[in-house]
Amino acid sequence: MEWSVNRESDKPIYQQIFEYIEEKIAYGEFPPGSRLPSERKMAEQLNVNRMTIVHVYDELQASGLVERKKGSGTRVSTHKWGILPKGVTNWRKYIEGGSFLPTYPLIKRIRDEAKVMKDGYNMAGGELSTDLFPASFLQASFNQHAFPSNLGYVHPQGHLEFRETLASYVKEYHDINVTSSSILITSGAQQALYLITQCLLNPGDAVAIEAPSYSYSLPLFQSAGLRIFALPVDAEGINPDDIVTLYRKHQIRMIFLNPTFQSPTGGVMTEPRRERVLEIAAELGIPIVEDDPVSLLSFDGKTHYPLKSIDKSGNVLYVGSLSKVIASSLRVGWIMGPESVINRLADARQQIDFGLSIFPQLIANQFIQSPEYPKHLAFLKQELLERRNEMVLALNEYLGDKVEFSVPKGGLFCWCKIKQKVDDQKLVEEAIKNKILFMPGSVYGSPNGYVRFTYARLQREAIKEAVLKFAKVLDKV
Amino acid sequence: MEWSVNRESDKPIYQQIFEYIEEKIAYGEFPPGSRLPSERKMAEQLNVNRMTIVHVYDELQASGLVERKKGSGTRVSTHKWGILPKGVTNWRKYIEGGSFLPTYPLIKRIRDEAKVMKDGYNMAGGELSTDLFPASFLQASFNQHAFPSNLGYVHPQGHLEFRETLASYVKEYHDINVTSSSILITSGAQQALYLITQCLLNPGDAVAIEAPSYSYSLPLFQSAGLRIFALPVDAEGINPDDIVTLYRKHQIRMIFLNPTFQSPTGGVMTEPRRERVLEIAAELGIPIVEDDPVSLLSFDGKTHYPLKSIDKSGNVLYVGSLSKVIASSLRVGWIMGPESVINRLADARQQIDFGLSIFPQLIANQFIQSPEYPKHLAFLKQELLERRNEMVLALNEYLGDKVEFSVPKGGLFCWCKIKQKVDDQKLVEEAIKNKILFMPGSVYGSPNGYVRFTYARLQREAIKEAVLKFAKVLDKV
Repeated sequence: MEWSVNRESDKPIYQQIFEYIEEKIAYGEFPPGSRLPSERKMAEQLNVNRMTIVHVYDELQASGLVERKKGSGTRVSTHKWGILPKGVTNWRKYIEGGSFLPTYPLIKRIRDEAKVMKDGYNMAGGELSTDLFPASFLQASFNQHAFPSNLGYVHPQGHLEFRETLASYVKEYHDINVTSSSILITSGAQQALYLITQCLLNPGDAVAIEAPSYSYSLPLFQSAGLRIFALPVDAEGINPDDIVTLYRKHQIRMIFLNPTFQSPTGGVMTEPRRERVLEIAAELGIPIVEDDPVSLLSFDGKTHYPLKSIDKSGNVLYVGSLSKVIASSLRVGWIMGPESVINRLADARQQIDFGLSIFPQLIANQFIQSPEYPKHLAFLKQELLERRNEMVLALNEYLGDKVEFSVPKGGLFCWCKIKQKVDDQKLVEEAIKNKILFMPGSVYGSPNGYVRFTYARLQREAIKEAVLKFAKVLDKV
Repeated sequence: MEWSVNRESDKPIYQQIFEYIEEKIAYGEFPPGSRLPSERKMAEQLNVNRMTIVHVYDELQASGLVERKKGSGTRVSTHKWGILPKGVTNWRKYIEGGSFLPTYPLIKRIRDEAKVMKDGYNMAGGELSTDLFPASFLQASFNQHAFPSNLGYVHPQGHLEFRETLASYVKEYHDINVTSSSILITSGAQQALYLITQCLLNPGDAVAIEAPSYSYSLPLFQSAGLRIFALPVDAEGINPDDIVTLYRKHQIRMIFLNPTFQSPTGGVMTEPRRERVLEIAAELGIPIVEDDPVSLLSFDGKTHYPLKSIDKSGNVLYVGSLSKVIASSLRVGWIMGPESVINRLADARQQIDFGLSIFPQLIANQFIQSPEYPKHLAFLKQELLERRNEMVLALNEYLGDKVEFSVPKGGLFCWCKIKQKVDDQKLVEEAIKNKILFMPGSVYGSPNGYVRFTYARLQREAIKEAVLKFAKVLDKV
């Protein structure tokens, strides 16, 4: 709810709120029979005293606009779900249908909190802090070029010029050989994974993902009706032999890997394991989906080349994005793989959204070719390295005897095992009370007692404070 | 295939093509066992003599890279689909899976032709010609504003400022009352329809669409497993009583309507029918999805207000977009409806693509508020009116005794009934031979013998030529 009370108005606050709700009822935005937020919640959302809302709801009831019943809250009159009168759609029945599962409650809880929290410490979401976005660089390189005069539908696989640039880009940065016709531009890596799970797999299919992994937190695997099996991750990545075991037992049809600076563990799969994984997958004829969002953010000067760069069998679908190296709101990602697969995904994608807007493609195309881009990358790595150092210092100082962790050599995340026994849900709630956000390991498929901290979102000074605050929260639970 | 032969190179053409294919095989873009295009097709795609390709394929076979068999074409060696050896993914099995139906062959045929056709007459696709896009206006209003410094993920429903602008926009142009929290920004109307069919309906549900209608041409209804029933359209739109009949017979759960300048017929539903449709839908509790892409493009000064503007029960989900009034490659559309529905769709949408890029939203936000926007609309309407007049003149002159049509009072399309008996498929193929593209009525659910012409894509002079050419094609079949 983004409307807010105008405190400078002559109109009393309760009157403003009354009219706001009345209007939403009249517009059909709160349809007959729907439930209004509780008084407490509405008061919080609108940042007013609870008694004001009690007053408003009383007035709404008096005017016949809502009905109130003990235990079932305040509802828009005069209709109730279940015994719905004629004249209105039972929207709840529609909302509960469809094939999409809702976002996991704990993740939704943290995301919702992140939206409203003021003066808090966000170590949860995997994105960069505002000052790390190259907004002025982007604008400068964009303004140098005229908009193309043809703004008609772009090619189903994405803007051709940009795909050609990307082919050179992945050659230069990742040693991947690909031509423009084997690239599909997507709305970030999220859409890439959505298309792959929806178009290349069938409900009931078995797939393997790393445990823990970011993939585990995505309801899209479940929404697609897939059965998920775990490839446990250790300090060297997954164990290639586990693929064989899963294949024999469950006939897994696809493997999802994030080999470099993995989310959430921050780990890097070793080279011998990479080679072995490719060998095994090729031998079994199982495709690998390689998610590679942050491999450019290496702190020790070492380059980690993707599986795709050493795959000669065409078994790897390579998924990348600019979300973590430029900006998440750009929404530019890609899939690279066999032409026949790319064509199929591009055709399905036309049905979903008719392709990505040309503008983010133009902006990305100009920026990644500009001399500013390598400068930006160097700046970004240096900043993240300093923040990581700050976090490592703070973890050692305030939590040295309470957590175990490896120092991440790149990426955005630090993964900690809490030595004491702890309930993830309680830890999250206590942390929220203290204005700290982090991601609990359980949403990534870990047992309770692991946490993923992002150092990319907080300034250096704030990282120290946040870890200290977290230490106090941990003492409490 | 976008690679092309370099005719200025010293390297022989067949050698260039050989290396191109060799590279694609090496990269895994043509995986082992996959079939290469036929010699004829490859020659066409690369715009070379067929004998050159015969030579290349001979060389590829000699080098062991491909295998050729009578009747089954040329395949990358040494593996075949079906009896696939170890070491490679059987991609075909994956491509044929998933829940997405491919685009209808006839539509794909026309779209593919549109991509490669040079000096032809495109009266098929529903988009504007290059000169009608306000590229310089867009750029000017965009460059006046600094990029926002925060380029992190935007709100799941879309950029707040843009949603607020849109709320005023639909009030001003369509007399629709809505607040920003009841708006979801989508990637065009296509994504709006995708989200609604995927998230609010279940496989097996019955829905009603206009006959003929653009919706009929969308495989997304079938992909979602919906059963589709017809609401025949006459000169006044659909007949409201048909809704009751369909409801009794099939328990239809949703109605899809395009009341103003409908695609493909160009017709407008009359006001009494609009009121009656709303009454009936409300009485039966069936939601209406109102698709309204072109109602602003009225030629006779008359404003046609959407169903949504007179709906007080919250039964209408209103779908709009800027594709036909600004540019299709902007990819900006929206759904407006009850907050609970919008929240559900926004949550599902996060799983699909994590939201629309902020840049098209910023560009649209700035342009539709600028004084240039009404000027652009006026220019666009005038241009389209002149092109419509040109088409009507040409139809009367060259096809007066062979087709029947109503003069469209707005929008992009002219819908013609051919008096003689004709096979749509044959007509399309003969037209393609003569470099003319149009949409046959059968893809919209009409019987054979109807055609949809777009006058938005051709310059005035070209319209006359195109209709004359079409008349000649019609004579032939």
